[in-house]
Amino acid sequence: MDIEQILAPYRAKVKEQGDIVRKLKSEQADEYEIKKAVTDLKACKHQLEEKEAELAPKNPVFDRTKLEDLLKQRFFFDHSFSIYGGVQGLYDFGPMGCALKNNMLTIWRQLFVVEEQLLEVDCSMLTPEQVLQVSGHVERFTDFMVKDLKTGECFRADHLIEGFLEGKLHNKKTAEAEKVEINKILPVLDNMGVHELQDIITRYGIKSPITNNDLSEPQQFNLMFPTSIGPTGHYKGYLRPETAQGIFVNFPRLLQFNQGRIPFGVAQIGSSFRNEISPRSGLLRVREFTMAEIEYFVDPAEKDTFHKYDRVKDYSLKLYSACDQMDGRSPHSMRVHDAVTQKIIANETLAYFMVRIHQFLVKVGVDPERLRFRQHLSNEMAHYACDCWDAECHTSYGWVECVGCADRSCFDLTQHAKATGARMVAEKLLSEPKMVEVCECVPNKAELGKEFKGEAKAIMAKLAGLSLEEARDLKQRLEKDQEETLAVGEKQFRIQASLVKFKEGVEKVHVEEIVPNVIEPSFGIGRIMYAVLEHNFNIREGDEARTYLTLPAVIAPYKCSLLPLSGKEEFTPFIKQLSEQLAKLGVQHKIDESSGSIGRRYARTDQIAIPFGVTIDFDTVNKKPHTATLRERDTMRQIRAEIDQLPQLIHDLVEGKITWTETLKQFPEFKEQETA
Amino acid sequence: MDIEQILAPYRAKVKEQGDIVRKLKSEQADEYEIKKAVTDLKACKHQLEEKEAELAPKNPVFDRTKLEDLLKQRFFFDHSFSIYGGVQGLYDFGPMGCALKNNMLTIWRQLFVVEEQLLEVDCSMLTPEQVLQVSGHVERFTDFMVKDLKTGECFRADHLIEGFLEGKLHNKKTAEAEKVEINKILPVLDNMGVHELQDIITRYGIKSPITNNDLSEPQQFNLMFPTSIGPTGHYKGYLRPETAQGIFVNFPRLLQFNQGRIPFGVAQIGSSFRNEISPRSGLLRVREFTMAEIEYFVDPAEKDTFHKYDRVKDYSLKLYSACDQMDGRSPHSMRVHDAVTQKIIANETLAYFMVRIHQFLVKVGVDPERLRFRQHLSNEMAHYACDCWDAECHTSYGWVECVGCADRSCFDLTQHAKATGARMVAEKLLSEPKMVEVCECVPNKAELGKEFKGEAKAIMAKLAGLSLEEARDLKQRLEKDQEETLAVGEKQFRIQASLVKFKEGVEKVHVEEIVPNVIEPSFGIGRIMYAVLEHNFNIREGDEARTYLTLPAVIAPYKCSLLPLSGKEEFTPFIKQLSEQLAKLGVQHKIDESSGSIGRRYARTDQIAIPFGVTIDFDTVNKKPHTATLRERDTMRQIRAEIDQLPQLIHDLVEGKITWTETLKQFPEFKEQETA
Repeated sequence: MDIEQILAPYRAKVKEQGDIVRKLKSEQADEYEIKKAVTDLKACKHQLEEKEAELAPKNPVFDRTKLEDLLKQRFFFDHSFSIYGGVQGLYDFGPMGCALKNNMLTIWRQLFVVEEQLLEVDCSMLTPEQVLQVSGHVERFTDFMVKDLKTGECFRADHLIEGFLEGKLHNKKTAEAEKVEINKILPVLDNMGVHELQDIITRYGIKSPITNNDLSEPQQFNLMFPTSIGPTGHYKGYLRPETAQGIFVNFPRLLQFNQGRIPFGVAQIGSSFRNEISPRSGLLRVREFTMAEIEYFVDPAEKDTFHKYDRVKDYSLKLYSACDQMDGRSPHSMRVHDAVTQKIIANETLAYFMVRIHQFLVKVGVDPERLRFRQHLSNEMAHYACDCWDAECHTSYGWVECVGCADRSCFDLTQHAKATGARMVAEKLLSEPKMVEVCECVPNKAELGKEFKGEAKAIMAKLAGLSLEEARDLKQRLEKDQEETLAVGEKQFRIQASLVKFKEGVEKVHVEEIVPNVIEPSFGIGRIMYAVLEHNFNIREGDEARTYLTLPAVIAPYKCSLLPLSGKEEFTPFIKQLSEQLAKLGVQHKIDESSGSIGRRYARTDQIAIPFGVTIDFDTVNKKPHTATLRERDTMRQIRAEIDQLPQLIHDLVEGKITWTETLKQFPEFKEQETA
Repeated sequence: MDIEQILAPYRAKVKEQGDIVRKLKSEQADEYEIKKAVTDLKACKHQLEEKEAELAPKNPVFDRTKLEDLLKQRFFFDHSFSIYGGVQGLYDFGPMGCALKNNMLTIWRQLFVVEEQLLEVDCSMLTPEQVLQVSGHVERFTDFMVKDLKTGECFRADHLIEGFLEGKLHNKKTAEAEKVEINKILPVLDNMGVHELQDIITRYGIKSPITNNDLSEPQQFNLMFPTSIGPTGHYKGYLRPETAQGIFVNFPRLLQFNQGRIPFGVAQIGSSFRNEISPRSGLLRVREFTMAEIEYFVDPAEKDTFHKYDRVKDYSLKLYSACDQMDGRSPHSMRVHDAVTQKIIANETLAYFMVRIHQFLVKVGVDPERLRFRQHLSNEMAHYACDCWDAECHTSYGWVECVGCADRSCFDLTQHAKATGARMVAEKLLSEPKMVEVCECVPNKAELGKEFKGEAKAIMAKLAGLSLEEARDLKQRLEKDQEETLAVGEKQFRIQASLVKFKEGVEKVHVEEIVPNVIEPSFGIGRIMYAVLEHNFNIREGDEARTYLTLPAVIAPYKCSLLPLSGKEEFTPFIKQLSEQLAKLGVQHKIDESSGSIGRRYARTDQIAIPFGVTIDFDTVNKKPHTATLRERDTMRQIRAEIDQLPQLIHDLVEGKITWTETLKQFPEFKEQETA
């Protein structure tokens, strides 16, 4: 029976429920009713997805334990501080993981910073509390946790309930009716509030899975790491939860750097922190991680056109729109321009970056067949976003969000402007000048300085930034009471009428002020890395023990191995010469002088994804011109070339200036056994 | 009068006092007496250095305020969160600073990771308290602070006293005798304990410089940022104060990665944190900073020979040895091999890395004339070091430590091994096998697992790591009492005699275990960056306002500017074509289409150190073949070349494949005025 036939009723059910949600929304029905309908919709979607996964062809090769063994044993990454027992959610990248990550970041910089002419910045991780209050993170960057009432052990509430319910679901004794109920709960767990979570814990009598003790009520836990800056202990700060805020608070300087013009993009690569309640799934949910974020500032009226859009409009992306999700349809490939025209992707700017994200992911080794863009449903969106597409990679953990591409509108700039009085706007030339009323507050600088000293600058900035209404209001109040309280940041100041004057009138203006919108592609480097490793993990046919990684040469930690046939001294000068030449060309390589057959050593280098290997043998030493073999990892085929040609050839292969297929044509193939 | 003649008596006084210290040490005199003599020695040194600085030829051009204006205005770096009033000691790097830093790190990776074949790792910044207790940082990574008794404001005690005493020193009313006294105190302030500091505060009646209120007694303040990991709030951690510990705790994995062999080196680039009491001096003393550290693990018996030493032995370094400092001599240039032979530099390994540090610093733009290596006096050394040379750069703040090169001996590996029972040793093949007594503790794995579950692994590791004496001791005690307490990390376990057996006898061994020593070159990237900026800051002759930076092309943020002569549309296609070709070659560049004369725009690009600039003019558009001018920043000379040749030419100039002098010979010079 055709898979689609089996899935048809599941799809129909989603569509039916999706229509109900749409209808309720269009009728502006009661919020509770909409929420309930969305819950049911998600349950239907969940069943459809489970069925799809069940019917999907299985990848027969992949065995996660084997991959994990390889990654640990060859030190791609491993738990931090494990000689001290380790810390959950913290990982150290060993030489292989670190090189892989650096190579990914180099490509990222080339594709985005260089080719898109972005302004890269590097901002502090330590962040004062006030900034994160304004950005909404102090209030909203939280998860619910429950505590074991006796041991104090903490669990993330939704994960705990999920584990419990999934156990029940797979228990044959559970009644069908209960299973239906559970299937409705599971997909909406992550949006539940404290009372809903408590209800479920009570209803199912959920206890601690470790001790079976009773659990506390769910309580909000802020996921930021707190610290205190400076010696007094009174200046609270956090480790940043995202790199974005560092860019937003620097907006005025960056705009000035760009000579006042928008659009422009800013990039930042750096660490962010998230104090997960119970980290799990290896690199996918960790407490310290590298992000690469772009904030592209654009005139909201001009999001619809992007200057390089023409280059990407015929590109195809696999899209899973909110609409598809509500209609029970599968994701499907679509020409970008069709998606923009049909308003599936909101605008050209967003579309352009989605294509660039796709190009980056494929270049670093993500399998395009296991990559899709999923649009957030409106109730999934972060507090700052108004539209969001996630680039998701399929792994053995399911679909994993690796890159988010959100339209944060003007949320952040507006918030910071409100809190500080800073001018978070760009100026836009009007097509024709217009007359506007003005009320400008002119401070008496000398007097203000005398009165407020170090604070005077901030007060003047605040006064200069007053809107027409605010300035008029202040003027009136000063006329009435002769003094007035002014809030600047968190402080309050008493301003005497004598300290300021007001200039009122009508002015001709040539520019208008706009608060730019922000399109934000945000890359989770660790997650991408894990997806790439899974997508490139292989086992040689006929030899279960020979695992290897087919990473693209451009991100492989080492590009080349140098193998002397044996430990004999006569090979050393050749190895040394090649090593130095490769180093000068910037080609990372590894000398493996260990004993063991060449075949065994190739197997070892295949494990760490070294794409090319040079073997120095007796012919190298004894015959002139000196030659050596060059082997490629994926085909395991070898050629023979003069030793002086090899460094440049390897360099060009790594840089993609020549392909392996072309190389095979240009040089004689070497057919002796690897174990020879 | 010759400078050296003036300095002679100062030098003599240092030498005299240095000899006293040496004598006391050789006689193993009372510790207090030695300390007092060292204090006097430092005072003499201080006077000598002050005199030297006074007599040194002044750099007539340098004006720090102008440099700071440039760095702020063109956003190299600036205070973080300044729209919120800023946070002391935190800086954001703007597009120019970030690119400069990235370029420096790329060169660092090429020189060290690639050319020295180091293993680069990337470890967690969040670090559990226990690790930093073992490394000594919880106890010893502290400064003394005093508090304003009324406002609670905190000051770093030594800096506060220093400021006060320097004020007194420059006050004409201060008696000469008191000045002599003060000159003795100043140079030893940073080594003083709580009582000494308190004595000075009392003696001089020092108050808060802000409020004139009384001050608290000095108290130790730990400079690490504390946080809490996980949701319970009971697992204390810190932000790492150095990247080194991440490498040490991974030593067993790294040794395995290197197939069990030493020597090998490990590198890490990353952020470290230091909660300064009162940060100052811009980038030189900050709370969050990038380090690049190398830990080179070496057999202590083999430090004296280094496999690549021959390449550096004829290199000259300006050395300021501990001996020179005690004898009142100036630093002087010396051939490395002479320094090693005379035991001024302790061993070849240390010497090799000092040369590589020198090469790196000069390559990124440090002026070799303002660079010296100063050896620590024995009482200045960090708690973990047994020898240390600092690469110091001279700036307007004086001599600044930019790179430390310390011999940490086996301090850290030994500490972590003791605390965890992990095997922090390498095996070394004996020249001939020897017979040794053994007492091996063989645990009953099944029983031990049943009894201790998750803890069993750590217990077995501990048992396996017992020394001969420890194992014998345990055996005896178990025979006597049938059970015994075993400490594993911070926990205690009761071990029954039935859980273990002992294998005693004599064994022939072919290897011995050694704890490697560690040579640690540690680079403060921000400090180097600041020194480079100061060393490369210039003002055009005859025009005070035209400041510019002569950064080497290889680290310049942008390599090339593209300037259309005016805003006319006909120039656009040429700019676009060049921009794309440069981007593909990975050449960072900046298009400046702003209005303003070419001369003015060149001045702007000179400020951000862009070494090359291409101008598109009417000849470019109207004549065939299309040509454009290429200008070099430092000489301000220009050539004319075909537009198709330019991208590769610029690429080669930046990479150093061709020099500007050669370029001037190959292409016709373009002599029209910049302002044409």
